[in-house]
Amino acid sequence: MKIPLQTNQTLYRILLVVLLFSASAKAQIQKTEPPFWYAGMNNPELQIMFYGKNIAQYEPTVSNNVVIKDIKKTENPNYIFVTIDTKNIPASELVFSFKNKNKVAYTQKYSLKKRRENSAQRKSFDASDMMYLIMPDRFANGNPKNDSDPSLVEKANRSIPGGRHGGDIEGIIQNLDYISSLGATTIWNTPLNEDNDKEHSYHTYAQSDVYKIDSRYGTNEDYVRLSNEMHKRNMKLVMDYVTNHWGITHWMMKDLPTKSWINQFENYTQTHHRREVITDIHASKLDKEVCIDGWFVPSMPDLNLKNPLVAKYLTQNAIWWIEYADLDGFRVDTYNYSDPAAMANWAKSVTDEYPNFNIVGEIWMHNQANLAYWQKDSKIGAIQNYNSNLPSVMDFTLHNQIGSAFNEDEATWDNGMIKFYNNFALDYLYPNTNNILVFAENHDTSRINDLYKYDIAKYKLVMTLMATVRGIPQLYYGSEIGMGGDKSQGDGGIRLDFPGGWKGDTNNAFTAAGRTAKQAEYFDFTSKLFNWRKSNEAVHFGKMTHYIPENNTYVYFRYTDAKTVMVVFNNNAKEQTIKTNRFKENIKNFKSGKDVLTGKTFDLTSEITLEPKSAIVLELE
Amino acid sequence: MKIPLQTNQTLYRILLVVLLFSASAKAQIQKTEPPFWYAGMNNPELQIMFYGKNIAQYEPTVSNNVVIKDIKKTENPNYIFVTIDTKNIPASELVFSFKNKNKVAYTQKYSLKKRRENSAQRKSFDASDMMYLIMPDRFANGNPKNDSDPSLVEKANRSIPGGRHGGDIEGIIQNLDYISSLGATTIWNTPLNEDNDKEHSYHTYAQSDVYKIDSRYGTNEDYVRLSNEMHKRNMKLVMDYVTNHWGITHWMMKDLPTKSWINQFENYTQTHHRREVITDIHASKLDKEVCIDGWFVPSMPDLNLKNPLVAKYLTQNAIWWIEYADLDGFRVDTYNYSDPAAMANWAKSVTDEYPNFNIVGEIWMHNQANLAYWQKDSKIGAIQNYNSNLPSVMDFTLHNQIGSAFNEDEATWDNGMIKFYNNFALDYLYPNTNNILVFAENHDTSRINDLYKYDIAKYKLVMTLMATVRGIPQLYYGSEIGMGGDKSQGDGGIRLDFPGGWKGDTNNAFTAAGRTAKQAEYFDFTSKLFNWRKSNEAVHFGKMTHYIPENNTYVYFRYTDAKTVMVVFNNNAKEQTIKTNRFKENIKNFKSGKDVLTGKTFDLTSEITLEPKSAIVLELE
Repeated sequence: MKIPLQTNQTLYRILLVVLLFSASAKAQIQKTEPPFWYAGMNNPELQIMFYGKNIAQYEPTVSNNVVIKDIKKTENPNYIFVTIDTKNIPASELVFSFKNKNKVAYTQKYSLKKRRENSAQRKSFDASDMMYLIMPDRFANGNPKNDSDPSLVEKANRSIPGGRHGGDIEGIIQNLDYISSLGATTIWNTPLNEDNDKEHSYHTYAQSDVYKIDSRYGTNEDYVRLSNEMHKRNMKLVMDYVTNHWGITHWMMKDLPTKSWINQFENYTQTHHRREVITDIHASKLDKEVCIDGWFVPSMPDLNLKNPLVAKYLTQNAIWWIEYADLDGFRVDTYNYSDPAAMANWAKSVTDEYPNFNIVGEIWMHNQANLAYWQKDSKIGAIQNYNSNLPSVMDFTLHNQIGSAFNEDEATWDNGMIKFYNNFALDYLYPNTNNILVFAENHDTSRINDLYKYDIAKYKLVMTLMATVRGIPQLYYGSEIGMGGDKSQGDGGIRLDFPGGWKGDTNNAFTAAGRTAKQAEYFDFTSKLFNWRKSNEAVHFGKMTHYIPENNTYVYFRYTDAKTVMVVFNNNAKEQTIKTNRFKENIKNFKSGKDVLTGKTFDLTSEITLEPKSAIVLELE
Repeated sequence: MKIPLQTNQTLYRILLVVLLFSASAKAQIQKTEPPFWYAGMNNPELQIMFYGKNIAQYEPTVSNNVVIKDIKKTENPNYIFVTIDTKNIPASELVFSFKNKNKVAYTQKYSLKKRRENSAQRKSFDASDMMYLIMPDRFANGNPKNDSDPSLVEKANRSIPGGRHGGDIEGIIQNLDYISSLGATTIWNTPLNEDNDKEHSYHTYAQSDVYKIDSRYGTNEDYVRLSNEMHKRNMKLVMDYVTNHWGITHWMMKDLPTKSWINQFENYTQTHHRREVITDIHASKLDKEVCIDGWFVPSMPDLNLKNPLVAKYLTQNAIWWIEYADLDGFRVDTYNYSDPAAMANWAKSVTDEYPNFNIVGEIWMHNQANLAYWQKDSKIGAIQNYNSNLPSVMDFTLHNQIGSAFNEDEATWDNGMIKFYNNFALDYLYPNTNNILVFAENHDTSRINDLYKYDIAKYKLVMTLMATVRGIPQLYYGSEIGMGGDKSQGDGGIRLDFPGGWKGDTNNAFTAAGRTAKQAEYFDFTSKLFNWRKSNEAVHFGKMTHYIPENNTYVYFRYTDAKTVMVVFNNNAKEQTIKTNRFKENIKNFKSGKDVLTGKTFDLTSEITLEPKSAIVLELE
């Protein structure tokens, strides 16, 4: 099991395991995962992993007439995987007995809990939502008492850009009204599961326990409370799920269930990140293998989803969280760094349990066809007989354009507003662009306010675009009050603390009274725009017709039978007048339009004039 | 019929028509098109257009028991379209009679000729070929007597970059041995049909008669002679066909068969050239209409292929040229500027007659999916239930990379050799990348030697790539002797005269003796490379496996069961050593490789070292 540990660390860990096992005869079963389950799931098969010294030597049986369908043992005698059939088994307390020569050596209770009403039919996020992306460690420190935990290595230290700053679940809960007032209806927060890495644990993608909220964020119960508080406000909670890797400190890494639980090479091998090879018909086997099986970084062992035990483990873990925390969706990290067939099965298993459940995968690629490939029922995927079953992808090509186009005052053949036109012109490649994530930035990219040098006019253009084109808009915490930060300073540069999230912050942007005038200008605009968006079906699921940009202006319409919205951008540094005759297909018999941002009415019978670097969003009348 | 003529020109032309018709009673039928046809075609229906004053007043009949299936008249009484059934009619001389009140007013002979043996099953160009692109006016002036013609407006004047320089068919014929010695097996020349425009007629895309070779290039018989001379040398002739437009001086423009023969607007309307709208699900009807129906330039009336008479005319014209001149393929100009459904029918009709006939369309777009859409049996096209029936497209995305990558000595994430890798990684989108045209330049683009500032090392990299990747390589005349020319000087800048093509040229690059040392270096390299390519099946239709570039080096293999070719590029300005172990999937048990360019043998058991900015093409042993 070559994983890149220092030899002395390995020895220390082996010692630790030995000590754990020898501590108590009663503690023979150290871990049971999933820790409990639910009665009445669509898939009645449940694979329970028991971990304990030499557990594989024992014969498992179970109470309540439950049938054991399969028992899997590996080369590591400390694990046993028991598959039971839960069909028609009511919510109940089961007991597993582990026998040796017909003598029960020890027992383990196991709960099948009752599901929430209509759990399987839960709704999820969609284009009617606005998604607010939070890094919990950097948002608000609601409970300063949990900033550090004696049992976890990294302690809080706000002076380190890559350190833990103390933000937590309580901080999010305390600011739900703020988020809601912005017009956001959904929160995607970066992961909250325990990450016991010695540094950079604040990003929490190197998880050490995937059934447990990191105590520095709160408890599992706090996470459920967040979900409940959000639902009270008609908001939706999206979990950031990681299928590709765990942290090097994950408890299993000390005593792997099987060598093939993670992808291993003779020498440490890192992915080359060129995921173009996955669909490349000319790619070498080696390049494909390194892409999928290579590690993301040395601190994140790469899970081998081709191993059915691992695939099942991750499927059940995902379903467990949906059921336990009453989740409304997943964002899945590094989606196409894992075996594509296994990921398709994972997504299918989750959506078979929850047919309306939305999952947006991080497919960070720069070509529409390569993005569209990964969306469920893709005709591009079908070229290679692949169906990802993944409902939603992120519009990374649009993201690429959003970060530069509004700096291009002078249009060329390829620059300026045509960048957006050309992006949407390729929408035919996607099976469903209503279910595609539209974003200007996230926790891994440059900050939009930094890219646009805190020019609020350009910020407004960005937000107006995001709020009115097809798809689900996603806003990264803090931009709405003009926050920036410099990616060239490292990830810490784009993950600054939200002002007001920490006791003693002199600037509190969470409250109207606490905001600076500039922050208020950003916030008021954003809040007005996205609160308007909440109730406008035309920009949720309406059709879109756009017109080839002329003179760096861009006009498009979103419309249903009942409602038409006309959006006009002037990306010039000068005023522009646009004749409306060209748009008569969509203007039809409407005579005027009211700008939802200013309340100003525009006569549409002849021409309209736009201020420099501005956009209008007209409800046609 | 609003076509953008000067009023005085219009009047002059109307006068001309009146004069033509009144000249002679015997000359009542001015034009019969096609002028003759062939017996035994797959599609037995033949639509003959007769043009003569008030011809529509007469009732046509035909001899030899031939059945008239349809007679079409338009609002212009000077045209009649007669469709006959040629099924089972042997090669023969037919006679059409035009009657008025049962009295024959006049007659017209019409030949059904005998086809060549196996005409329908003719082979065409493919990836085993190398295509040499010639602009005939700029290549060689074989017959100085035909440089000007009293009946055609523009006269020869070599001092004008956009003028006629005198090159002709005879010039090509005289230099076929030169072209063949280069390793080229196929010629695509820009059009030769009559173009009576008053200026820029040398490019010949504004044709005034599509059944007649321009007399300044030669005669129809000369064109057939070119074809025959090529076939004697096992070479293939590809005609540059134009479906989208004719010239404003085309004889029909003076008296349109019907208003809808060409696309007309209230005011002159030019295409916006943004062909992304064609497949765009959000495009406005207006933008789509202007794209397809708008004119390319004012001197080229845009043909309306949605009119079945026009579509049939162009189909028959294309087939006529194949049959008449014994053609081996088409290159089709401005392919997706015409109605897509009509073009799909056109391509189907041609390939229904000649199942092996290759047609490469100029789809000048910059996204692989948008290119792949247009190739026959495309899965991308199928998204919109479209099948172009077009066998081949041009790899414009590769072209975009070829012009810059070899200047990028330092690789970044996106620059250097990765540009090629990423291009080929998207090959999965195409139905058939063996039948895709690979080119560094053509008559509309910057010259490769100019882009690379006459650095022969970079030229060699370009040619080595073109000669060894999948697809059909195409070379633009003159580059093989180091010719350049500056696109910023206008089209004339990239369409310079080939040295030696004109009597009195002091430098004659057509002969070994006449070449400068530098020209010889270019020619010898190119000739060696493409002559080697002629007989190497692995680089024609072999599989391709490539490896992710490392340190700006790029390695790929082309192979069949019998043969393996390994190609290695070093795009660095420094020597590079590459370990061969990474490529063992393809090197297998081969121990060494012989470079076809230098004859040097490379040991493949450990590592290979490449000179700065160089490539090797190894036949593995």
